[in-house]
Amino acid sequence: MASLKVPATVPSPEEDAKQLNEAFKGWGTNEGVIISILAHRNATQRNFLRTVYAANYKKDLLKELDKELSGDFERAVMLWTFDPAERDAYLAKESTKMFTKNNWILVEIACARSALDFLKAKQAYQARYKTSLEEDVAYHTSGDLRKLLVPLVSTFRYDGAEVNMMLAMLEAKMLHDQVEDKEYNDGNLIRILTTRSKAQISATLNHFKNTYGTSITKYLKKDSDNEYVQLLKAIIKCLTYPEKYFEKVLRQAINKVGTDEWGLTRVVTTRAELDMERIKEEYLRRNSVPLDRAIAKDTHGDYEEILLALIGHGHA
Amino acid sequence: MASLKVPATVPSPEEDAKQLNEAFKGWGTNEGVIISILAHRNATQRNFLRTVYAANYKKDLLKELDKELSGDFERAVMLWTFDPAERDAYLAKESTKMFTKNNWILVEIACARSALDFLKAKQAYQARYKTSLEEDVAYHTSGDLRKLLVPLVSTFRYDGAEVNMMLAMLEAKMLHDQVEDKEYNDGNLIRILTTRSKAQISATLNHFKNTYGTSITKYLKKDSDNEYVQLLKAIIKCLTYPEKYFEKVLRQAINKVGTDEWGLTRVVTTRAELDMERIKEEYLRRNSVPLDRAIAKDTHGDYEEILLALIGHGHA
Repeated sequence: MASLKVPATVPSPEEDAKQLNEAFKGWGTNEGVIISILAHRNATQRNFLRTVYAANYKKDLLKELDKELSGDFERAVMLWTFDPAERDAYLAKESTKMFTKNNWILVEIACARSALDFLKAKQAYQARYKTSLEEDVAYHTSGDLRKLLVPLVSTFRYDGAEVNMMLAMLEAKMLHDQVEDKEYNDGNLIRILTTRSKAQISATLNHFKNTYGTSITKYLKKDSDNEYVQLLKAIIKCLTYPEKYFEKVLRQAINKVGTDEWGLTRVVTTRAELDMERIKEEYLRRNSVPLDRAIAKDTHGDYEEILLALIGHGHA
Repeated sequence: MASLKVPATVPSPEEDAKQLNEAFKGWGTNEGVIISILAHRNATQRNFLRTVYAANYKKDLLKELDKELSGDFERAVMLWTFDPAERDAYLAKESTKMFTKNNWILVEIACARSALDFLKAKQAYQARYKTSLEEDVAYHTSGDLRKLLVPLVSTFRYDGAEVNMMLAMLEAKMLHDQVEDKEYNDGNLIRILTTRSKAQISATLNHFKNTYGTSITKYLKKDSDNEYVQLLKAIIKCLTYPEKYFEKVLRQAINKVGTDEWGLTRVVTTRAELDMERIKEEYLRRNSVPLDRAIAKDTHGDYEEILLALIGHGHA
């Protein structure tokens, strides 16, 4: 369930655009107005608002925000205001660049979105960067990581709920043989994780657990200091239990000395319209502190305000 | 979230009572009418209906149902029609008797209800059986099981969300020392699990996981062939992750050769008004088959119909 709160009666995009335009005027910027509008509009409403803003004020709303804001608050507002596909394209591009390299983000985009949303992100990537995500990932990786990540970002999985139980049994055995021999970079394991539907992979891993008495991630845990194996675990978690995966990203971002604002902003902006309510539930269960309180303790000012608004704090 | 579906406009209890009374008349019984009414009324509505039935027809609705129905269908209708506190009292009584002994049910009632609901169940137990649950459990158990179960059913936990983090750290260490030495029947472990609030126990077990890198249930797993240790695990699961606990009870009830109808009926009737939607989600995730399809495959007739109605299948 989404945490985003949209008011019962939403002002017209013309009115929203006017308020934002006024908030940018003069010396100071009225951050409160920016939060009160943008953090309470869904993706369709934000898109419409950007179109109307461009038409009425001959300026790109995102560029205006970029000019007026700064720091973590700017990054949160920008990432949030993006259309989800555009945002994923932007994050994917960043994560293949040298200084902001982050293979976990590629895993999240490829595995914790619906097949269609992931496809739209790849289309947005091509429209914006004039290259394909596949070729950029292939170019920037090598060895085992390339063998895993290129098929992962190339796939367009079937998204239905149907499951072939015979196939699940067969492939559970294949996976078991491989992880027992620690052949983590073998073709079958990569093939199964990168091409099968989420429902089918879930069935295979359930069968694995029923037959061998332990989950596949337990096997992988023994070798978890290796990035390749950690990515395998992240792929499995994103495909089968995304709210637990994101709970852990938040926990590590918040518990880190100095807070990992990029991780925090990424999870909040990409999940607020999807399953943030479930992530909050898992967060409370695992940390015994509500997420809003943990965020309020580690952040401040406008950055704190927008994160809290997006996770459903206060009124729309 | 509850799976129970109540229609938007509920007939008056007089009308419901009349329909039921007619369904009982003559040679046959109209099971369809019984399901269409009882399986779509919440606890308050069912209670009111019983009162009106007694007033208008001078008969106890439960006794009428008992007379007219039989088998698994009867048990499901009876358990469901009970008020939740009455139902828990009934199940608790059964579970202390020789032929229907089941310590897991005691754990469920003591740990997977709110503190207040558990207290109401104990009051209903005293009203109905003229003894206390505590004395009956103490009388029917011995040794380590008594050391664990008597304080468990005696407790009236604090139900608030406040957590003392210093205490959680301290008690996590206590628990770790004990489970490492396999002193599972030691006073501190029992004291913590039977007296602390759910939020506090959750904080302690989270701290345990953060500090020792593994959950307490992993330690207990090594000795899981012993009933006492299995009960400890069930207590922890019911206190911290009830939807996963009940998913497992359902999985084992359904996968058993011949199906464990008592387990199936118990979980459906006790959770339909609480968190059955979450249990269904976990069931699908863990078994790759929706719960309704699994139930339809393993049961039939009126028994199947009432279970499906209670887990939210079809229209109210």
